[in-house]
Amino acid sequence: MNRIADLPDATLQSLHRQVRAEYDAFRARDLKLDMTRGKPAPDQLDLANDMLTLPGNRDYFSETGADARNYGDLQGLPEARALFAPMLGARPGQVFVADNSSLAVMHDCIVWALLKGVPGGAEAWGKAPGGEAPAFICPVPGYDRHFALCEEYGIRMLPVPLTGHGPDMDAVEALAADPSVKAMWCVPKYSNPSGEVYSDATVRRLAGMRTGAADFRLFWDNAYAVHHLTERRHEIANILDACERVGNPDRAFIFGSTSKITLAGAGLAFFASSPANLAWFLARAFKRTIGSDKLNQLRHVRFLKDQAGLMRHMDGHRALLAPKFDAVIAALEGRLAGTGAATWVTPEGGYFISLDATPGTARQVVALAKDAGLAMTAAGSTWPHGQDPHDSNLRLAPTFPSLADVTAAADAIALCILLAAIEKQCAERTKSSRTG
Amino acid sequence: MNRIADLPDATLQSLHRQVRAEYDAFRARDLKLDMTRGKPAPDQLDLANDMLTLPGNRDYFSETGADARNYGDLQGLPEARALFAPMLGARPGQVFVADNSSLAVMHDCIVWALLKGVPGGAEAWGKAPGGEAPAFICPVPGYDRHFALCEEYGIRMLPVPLTGHGPDMDAVEALAADPSVKAMWCVPKYSNPSGEVYSDATVRRLAGMRTGAADFRLFWDNAYAVHHLTERRHEIANILDACERVGNPDRAFIFGSTSKITLAGAGLAFFASSPANLAWFLARAFKRTIGSDKLNQLRHVRFLKDQAGLMRHMDGHRALLAPKFDAVIAALEGRLAGTGAATWVTPEGGYFISLDATPGTARQVVALAKDAGLAMTAAGSTWPHGQDPHDSNLRLAPTFPSLADVTAAADAIALCILLAAIEKQCAERTKSSRTG
Repeated sequence: MNRIADLPDATLQSLHRQVRAEYDAFRARDLKLDMTRGKPAPDQLDLANDMLTLPGNRDYFSETGADARNYGDLQGLPEARALFAPMLGARPGQVFVADNSSLAVMHDCIVWALLKGVPGGAEAWGKAPGGEAPAFICPVPGYDRHFALCEEYGIRMLPVPLTGHGPDMDAVEALAADPSVKAMWCVPKYSNPSGEVYSDATVRRLAGMRTGAADFRLFWDNAYAVHHLTERRHEIANILDACERVGNPDRAFIFGSTSKITLAGAGLAFFASSPANLAWFLARAFKRTIGSDKLNQLRHVRFLKDQAGLMRHMDGHRALLAPKFDAVIAALEGRLAGTGAATWVTPEGGYFISLDATPGTARQVVALAKDAGLAMTAAGSTWPHGQDPHDSNLRLAPTFPSLADVTAAADAIALCILLAAIEKQCAERTKSSRTG
Repeated sequence: MNRIADLPDATLQSLHRQVRAEYDAFRARDLKLDMTRGKPAPDQLDLANDMLTLPGNRDYFSETGADARNYGDLQGLPEARALFAPMLGARPGQVFVADNSSLAVMHDCIVWALLKGVPGGAEAWGKAPGGEAPAFICPVPGYDRHFALCEEYGIRMLPVPLTGHGPDMDAVEALAADPSVKAMWCVPKYSNPSGEVYSDATVRRLAGMRTGAADFRLFWDNAYAVHHLTERRHEIANILDACERVGNPDRAFIFGSTSKITLAGAGLAFFASSPANLAWFLARAFKRTIGSDKLNQLRHVRFLKDQAGLMRHMDGHRALLAPKFDAVIAALEGRLAGTGAATWVTPEGGYFISLDATPGTARQVVALAKDAGLAMTAAGSTWPHGQDPHDSNLRLAPTFPSLADVTAAADAIALCILLAAIEKQCAERTKSSRTG
């Protein structure tokens, strides 16, 4: 199709009638489709059903002989730390195993930083001498729950654009020079939602950049470390090594989880970092709990067994997910290629497709979709405070619905995007003919 | 035996030699005994071994049909809330189910109160207008991990004595009148370590007392709600009802867990409170996590089934624990009755025996025990900042060692208490003869 902006008025009006009719027909089907959240589908969870009877009746000793049923072992079972250390890019001794939810671990790091400070800092982040609120650098589009944590605790958010291989590092470095800028959110592999894989050069610059704050931290949420959608298993540069090499050994806090590996509601979460940061984390965690659920750690180890087992398991996810992503991309291309109504990325891993609709139409697209029985993630949710200045970015989450539903939903979304773009073009022409 | 203080010098010296010899003989046996922590013994954990294969291969739907393997249901499965609501003295709708560790839930309430404030408060606890640190009332002897949380976050601790049926309420009311006093630790049933069961009158006064802070909270850690050691299942007055009746509906935060019911390292923790407090808690928790481990909730429901099942299970614990507590009491009576060297309580539930040794000797008792291969909880640990002004209180934790080891350890502890008391008496007489 030709670009909407280039269509003669008559063609545009005819196209508008046609697309409107298609939309009305879709709406009349009265479907209920949900593309809001990055949830695994039931068939993905089925891959881990053997966990539901583990660790087994007589199996509760860790490899050190500790009784995993009882209190103790705050840092986590050695075999659980060993199994997931490679995914985190750390040594087993640098890993802490938490309960379900890496978001909770990030939350705790934030409240501890606010109330207690972090290694290398002169004071707690919440007690700056001038009373200035700390700030996080936020690559956009980004993860709404990261932004919600900052909002909850009055942390200022400074958006920087993404480039396709990580954040715009010139912008990052300019912001990081301010001493009140204490941290930066990073989803370095298959970013939520842009699918970004940080380049080695980006990782190196993040590790080595000058920061105004001596206690600056990268909140390195490697949530999709092994969540590939193609045969290519992307690797990124090791951030802990990169930081250590340039004399900033304590710069990175690494987070991860098995929520999208084993069971979303019953996984393990991880913190990994330098020895100084780990000691800090353990000292704080020791006040909070006597230990995480070690039977769930044992359950994971018994089920996944080793690196090869983990990779095989992730191949199972890929087999279920890749067709859904393909269906979305095909629907977008089928309806939108050449129209200029939207641009999107084809991710090679992760859980999302990021799409930029015609500026000024994202809210309208979500409203049109809602009207047609299709729930989408709220427009703006990928920006701090839910405010996308371009009203353009949309996050598509194709993992949970069935392939048939994803296919239908993606086609409907493409239709809504197209309709919103056409109506905007029509409105602009009307306006310019009035003012012209 | 007669009171040590009343013995003639010659008798005292002869007794000293005899007890010293017994102690040396004990030390020569080179034992390794540990009475430090309130850990369940392996045979107690065995009672819950059937949980190790639950919920079972095809059993992952909650009673509402939700897939417990996936994200969602922040507040907890309805059937898990229903099962544990009676133990917490709340309705199921007032209960939040957290992951392993009620200490973590208390921690989170404290950091949220410090950073965000609680319902009814004009500002966050950490942001008082004058900058004054908030304070907690702390009945003593109390739980060291409660005190460690306060210490971690710079919260002032105000000790009040216990009476045998709860804290000294005149002292509590006098302290609570200060607006910077924001909360009070309470272990209302079978207190750690004193075994205290709060009387109805105590509960009523706590619910109704005037507090200087409009946002005052009782941190009601009902850790031993169903942990009886005798056939008498003590009940305490319902604190939520008592608070509501007198117009202070939001005064109590209730905490509990299954750590000492099912599996210490893999239990459930609970928060229960008024609708306003629960809404506050849920809003905070929603920022922190997408949800707790619901499969572990299902596992608990499948295993314990109902109130009768829970009670039967606790009877199993009692059968294992009561003989250990009896052995300790027998050893203390055998060695110390009539000597005036110590007083102690015989608890009817919980995990500890609180003992007051001769003032000024508790540290010495622990040192003597350590020298003889017997690890005890550090003297002073039952007081804020680990500082017992009388150097007298000792917490005995008889649950984890075998009955044989508990019997040996209790006898040895009694011997150490006696020896320390005698040596103190000897030293005092020497001193007074010098100064006299």
